[in-house]
Amino acid sequence: MTTRIEPFKAIAISELAHRLKADGKPVIHMEFGQPSTGAPQAAIDTAHAVLDSDAMGYWESARLRERIARHYHERYGVEIAPDRVLLTAGASPALLLSMLAGLEPGARIAMARPGYVAYRNTVRAVHLEAVEIDCGPETRFQLSAQMIADMDPAPAGIVIASPANPTGTILPPDEMEAIAAICRDRGIRIISDEIYHGLSYGMPAASALQFDETAFIVNSFSKYYSMVGWRLGWVIAPADRADLARAYRGNLFLTPPSLSQHAALAAMDCRAELDAHVETYRANRAVLLEALPRMGLTSIAPPDGAFYIWADIGHLTDNSMAFCERLLRETFVATAPGVDFDPVNGHRFMRISFAVSTPQVKEAIQRLEPWFGALTR
Amino acid sequence: MTTRIEPFKAIAISELAHRLKADGKPVIHMEFGQPSTGAPQAAIDTAHAVLDSDAMGYWESARLRERIARHYHERYGVEIAPDRVLLTAGASPALLLSMLAGLEPGARIAMARPGYVAYRNTVRAVHLEAVEIDCGPETRFQLSAQMIADMDPAPAGIVIASPANPTGTILPPDEMEAIAAICRDRGIRIISDEIYHGLSYGMPAASALQFDETAFIVNSFSKYYSMVGWRLGWVIAPADRADLARAYRGNLFLTPPSLSQHAALAAMDCRAELDAHVETYRANRAVLLEALPRMGLTSIAPPDGAFYIWADIGHLTDNSMAFCERLLRETFVATAPGVDFDPVNGHRFMRISFAVSTPQVKEAIQRLEPWFGALTR
Repeated sequence: MTTRIEPFKAIAISELAHRLKADGKPVIHMEFGQPSTGAPQAAIDTAHAVLDSDAMGYWESARLRERIARHYHERYGVEIAPDRVLLTAGASPALLLSMLAGLEPGARIAMARPGYVAYRNTVRAVHLEAVEIDCGPETRFQLSAQMIADMDPAPAGIVIASPANPTGTILPPDEMEAIAAICRDRGIRIISDEIYHGLSYGMPAASALQFDETAFIVNSFSKYYSMVGWRLGWVIAPADRADLARAYRGNLFLTPPSLSQHAALAAMDCRAELDAHVETYRANRAVLLEALPRMGLTSIAPPDGAFYIWADIGHLTDNSMAFCERLLRETFVATAPGVDFDPVNGHRFMRISFAVSTPQVKEAIQRLEPWFGALTR
Repeated sequence: MTTRIEPFKAIAISELAHRLKADGKPVIHMEFGQPSTGAPQAAIDTAHAVLDSDAMGYWESARLRERIARHYHERYGVEIAPDRVLLTAGASPALLLSMLAGLEPGARIAMARPGYVAYRNTVRAVHLEAVEIDCGPETRFQLSAQMIADMDPAPAGIVIASPANPTGTILPPDEMEAIAAICRDRGIRIISDEIYHGLSYGMPAASALQFDETAFIVNSFSKYYSMVGWRLGWVIAPADRADLARAYRGNLFLTPPSLSQHAALAAMDCRAELDAHVETYRANRAVLLEALPRMGLTSIAPPDGAFYIWADIGHLTDNSMAFCERLLRETFVATAPGVDFDPVNGHRFMRISFAVSTPQVKEAIQRLEPWFGALTR
């Protein structure tokens, strides 16, 4: 079958980690991009109140759509009508809707390799054609305007992600602007995954909406807002595709979780609490960037944002899955094998998530440093 | 574009109903299949406790999968391994996963017309081909074994729904068994939408799993369990497709809402409270079946289950959308136009949902009876 897809390998690592933990082992979970902090208190308080007062039917919150639209004005200086915002049960269905409403069946859609595995698998599920472009350190592992200009024939669409998963790299705003210009010239639809916005440590991430009104924007409350299990995301659709995207949403998904919408509205006004999480990630990142070179991990993508380290382990292994499994069994530190993100070169990379507490990061380094030391002796 | 889809017309009715309500009009919502009752109290209590104790990451509840597997044993006498149960954010993604994991790209899939509009639109989104079969009162508006035997060539799959939306009709168990036998003989995959199970007023609905281990079963907590806005459903996948369905689930959706999984586990032990809702629906149904013929609505599908009346209004209109809109504007009773469910004959049908309180049903009849009387005078 042409649409057969592979499961995430990191899930197998995570399942092993949970088994080891159940056996009493001191597992540190750095395999998934999942904040350990939970929703802001005001979101939880709101949820308690709604639970006791609302029977919760099929519902999309107009107030939350308006609040998200205002966020784009405040943060990026772009004006969007609230009816261009569609709420979804996480960023994953938002991505699916963007592909269905933004591209014609059979269209070719380009994306960086390495990248989030679900891009190519979602593309396959809806019968688009993924064109993966090998991206290395010279472009921060991102698509560049030049690469898109050089594609012949032009693809119908591209997926960009800034900050990116698994690398954490950010597209510089001038490069994103150049990409938007090329895409406008060549009639290429941009789908921009902005799920890690709010999590950056140097240059801020631009939104594709600043440069391209025809882009589809995908985002969620799972990362900066620390509301993973609430399953709430959104799409910003271009004005001329919003009704089509809504028709797909109604048919494929109906409405997103009601309680999560109430809570998310409260969470959007909890910036101090959420920014404190970002400061934790910033500290974790500094600790790792200081320690990893001592372990011989010197080739690391610049972690501009998100909460990931994408590290080259090619001097140690050509089987990242076996490597991550051995690392877990011997140190109880769970990480993600690079093969999930890059089927070609990922056998020599690993992804370390630092969305945990700083003491956990320090404890992980205590275990990793002698283990890597023994490997290379 | 070949995959362009139509929005639900009932959504436009519902939006008008909400505007009229905001203007102070006494609207009665009978346009959607949405219990007005809310989750059982034990589910709400569980949610309160979890909100204060769990950060809620990506998670699928093993206990809920086991509890659902046990439910199939207790209710239908079939044994399924818990790892054949996949939890999803409602029945809609469960349907999508069943189509992706159960059928080859481009496959032809047969379904009854009238039927739930999302079947054909979901089929189109994943590039399968819908074959709609005109079904009338002689088969309770359902596919029959004979129809499937007569199809040439055989379709790759069928969607069955019992109780059905919009008609509420149930496939008699011996007919479902005959359908399963024909499908086994002809190599046809069954996708069985069992979302209205638990809501029946005469003969109980059988599960396709009783007759076919290779069927995909779709269900959710939105109807019998009265947890619409919690967005939680499930798939039972055949043993040889469960891993593939899980790989699709991971890529397209990740995990379902965490809080809803905790609450749903509690809800499964609240049968007395939930069965009381069914008794309300039974009373509502009786009131309607007594009153509607007095209004000239004498051609009604046998409402064996669910909470719908599918009524022929062909003697009054050939434009069900305009009819339902006028009915709403003049009586403030919102109903669903038949065109949502049957693009061919739906212009002369309407669907009335009785998932409201009995006083609301009686009030609706007070308004409808003179209105219909005036129409036919």
